[in-house]
Amino acid sequence: MTQLELARDGVVTEAAHRVAQDENIDPELLRARLAEGTVAVPLNKKHRDIRPVGIGRGLRIKVNANIGTSGDRADLDMELKKLHVAIEAKADTIMDLSTGGDIALCRKAVMKNSTVPVGTVPIYEAAIHAVRRDGGIIHMTPDLIFDAIESQARDGVDFMTIHAGVTLAALERLRLQGRVTDIVSRGGAFLATWMLYHKRENPLFEDFDRLLDIARRFDLTLSLGDGLRPGSLADATDRAQIHELLTLGELAKRAWDNGIQVMIEGPGHIPLDQVETQVVLQKKLCGGAPFYVLGPLVTDIAAGYDHIACAIGGAVAGMAGADFLCYVTPSEHLRLPSIDDVRDGVIAARIAAHAADIARGRKEAIERDLEMSTARKNLDWDRQISISIDPDKARAYRSSSQPSSDDVCTMCGDFCAIKIVRDYFADSG
Amino acid sequence: MTQLELARDGVVTEAAHRVAQDENIDPELLRARLAEGTVAVPLNKKHRDIRPVGIGRGLRIKVNANIGTSGDRADLDMELKKLHVAIEAKADTIMDLSTGGDIALCRKAVMKNSTVPVGTVPIYEAAIHAVRRDGGIIHMTPDLIFDAIESQARDGVDFMTIHAGVTLAALERLRLQGRVTDIVSRGGAFLATWMLYHKRENPLFEDFDRLLDIARRFDLTLSLGDGLRPGSLADATDRAQIHELLTLGELAKRAWDNGIQVMIEGPGHIPLDQVETQVVLQKKLCGGAPFYVLGPLVTDIAAGYDHIACAIGGAVAGMAGADFLCYVTPSEHLRLPSIDDVRDGVIAARIAAHAADIARGRKEAIERDLEMSTARKNLDWDRQISISIDPDKARAYRSSSQPSSDDVCTMCGDFCAIKIVRDYFADSG
Repeated sequence: MTQLELARDGVVTEAAHRVAQDENIDPELLRARLAEGTVAVPLNKKHRDIRPVGIGRGLRIKVNANIGTSGDRADLDMELKKLHVAIEAKADTIMDLSTGGDIALCRKAVMKNSTVPVGTVPIYEAAIHAVRRDGGIIHMTPDLIFDAIESQARDGVDFMTIHAGVTLAALERLRLQGRVTDIVSRGGAFLATWMLYHKRENPLFEDFDRLLDIARRFDLTLSLGDGLRPGSLADATDRAQIHELLTLGELAKRAWDNGIQVMIEGPGHIPLDQVETQVVLQKKLCGGAPFYVLGPLVTDIAAGYDHIACAIGGAVAGMAGADFLCYVTPSEHLRLPSIDDVRDGVIAARIAAHAADIARGRKEAIERDLEMSTARKNLDWDRQISISIDPDKARAYRSSSQPSSDDVCTMCGDFCAIKIVRDYFADSG
Repeated sequence: MTQLELARDGVVTEAAHRVAQDENIDPELLRARLAEGTVAVPLNKKHRDIRPVGIGRGLRIKVNANIGTSGDRADLDMELKKLHVAIEAKADTIMDLSTGGDIALCRKAVMKNSTVPVGTVPIYEAAIHAVRRDGGIIHMTPDLIFDAIESQARDGVDFMTIHAGVTLAALERLRLQGRVTDIVSRGGAFLATWMLYHKRENPLFEDFDRLLDIARRFDLTLSLGDGLRPGSLADATDRAQIHELLTLGELAKRAWDNGIQVMIEGPGHIPLDQVETQVVLQKKLCGGAPFYVLGPLVTDIAAGYDHIACAIGGAVAGMAGADFLCYVTPSEHLRLPSIDDVRDGVIAARIAAHAADIARGRKEAIERDLEMSTARKNLDWDRQISISIDPDKARAYRSSSQPSSDDVCTMCGDFCAIKIVRDYFADSG
């Protein structure tokens, strides 16, 4: 039985117990949310030695870090270093998006070294296999796609992005509407290319039951991908995107009906004033399934600083109800990320997630800020540094610029406002 | 006559013309907004050789960068380098917040070298003068405060932070309520210390007319400061803060009645879900005066990354109607910022301002993103780099990681989604 089926049968699994404990919520409440599908715990049957992570309603907002090789940069050691740095920076999950070198080898190494749930996008492996073997994406076959999914599930991958909503009907809507940046999802582009060449429906949509069968055997969580997500603000919330979302909502229901956990992936590039609408739409159209957003980026021009554009969009999405933020690194749109980019991306997304957790009234998040501010009032620098989002960075900043008095910093020196007034208010707190 | 009086008399000054041209709005509409106080153009009579900047209703959201010495780091050359970097990174205004070394000398040097409007917080000079001459802030006198304001106005300072809302009544509210971080504004702390020691009202409040007289003579813009702004999320939107805001709204009216331009300063540390409320309150309570926010920071724990916490809060505040964002650098709460911190702070605030401009429907901002995305679709890398928020950074990222094909980047290599699909959609655009 899958975790979803067990939850429906009233069973609180060991994984559910651990998640409930980590989240400080009643295990029975968590079970009920697993049963209704508003929470997912991506955990492959073959990958039960990791710490499980809950994603969805009422839980701390989670952060995913993408790593993986490309054709131009296929250095497994480098990717494993990124894995290490991402987990050290407290990414909650990792996705291995490798498209270069030995993709299976990279995935197995990531699986072996990750202490957190791992996700993949198996269409990459299928498409690249077709390119390498037969010279083009159009030589991909449905079997190649489902075989990639099955072999990756067998490797223990916990959740997979499945672009089953890229249908012929959605592509026709896209063509009719016209777009600035057409398709920016690699998986969406692979599938669309294949579909348009062969004039055939998306195998992941047409043969969704075959996917469900694999997912059931490995208790795989489906992350229904938005292959038609907007790649520019101008394309946001267009008919192609919303058409795809309607399909994803229907597929989520079919997955649930078959005992399979689901998340829905979301955009992308979205103007700040449309972010809340995107979240409300997803929650309504997809039965409250956990929402996993890539960013969203609230401007197209922040190349070199897209982690900041992502933090703005992610925080607002999180406040509106998004559950899971995929980081974007400073190098997005420019290059494969470096190790430092990975760290910066995770931290920026964690700041967004934390700010949104506070906005949603999450007690643990509010208390952490209160503890920080109490340390600030007490001019307790060691405590401030240890509570900060990245103690190493905070420590490095402070030690780079030593104040003449230990209890202040070089911003204000002895004219520190807190230092000046705290005696006057010592009794009022 | 002041600019405000001229606007009321139906005169579109040369400065107003330039601002209207920069903002691409009707000069007569700008004049009407100057007359009603919803737009300010901070421009001292003695400082008319700079390019004027408009702040307020219907205009592009502006970004301020704070520079200046501290007692622990008083290096004038360094501060002038920061000035240069901030302007290069396209800060719209500069505030010189020096509290160390020869404060007047630093200000004069900043005034001489700045091509943008300059602001100050004159209470710093008064308080530090009292400390240096007489050994303590309590030895400050009303004359010392007003003399500092007048001498700085004579130097040509365009706008000044005036903490006239830190009244005895507000401090009593603060005491009754209790706070985690009491007072975190340096100016607020200086004044509160003096007031509580002497059991006297704030001279800036009590003798506001004396301030208005100086302001009128130099056509100084008053930036009514929030000396009681929350310094922690826990203190946000408390009775002390809102009491002060009520007073600032009344003082703004008095300034307008006397022909003086006004902006209102806002917090500070604010949970994301309260940011919009803060903006709506300010606009309602202060007659639509331009709102100048410091951040707001949406979490207390982002030390080392406070520019990101600020970008989140600033973008949401801007979307809700804030007009002017004061940057926060990565070193906030830890040290006086470095030159790199200044650049990072300006860029992060500009991303926030731009995202908010788009959300508010500003045509020029939307068109810039469209141009970027069109360049992206065309795989035109030179154009993408030149349109990006910081072309030097984007160029450095790209050149650090050369792809094997010139038309893609190393993130996806030849599996670039845009490259794969663009042929299929070439006719639909």
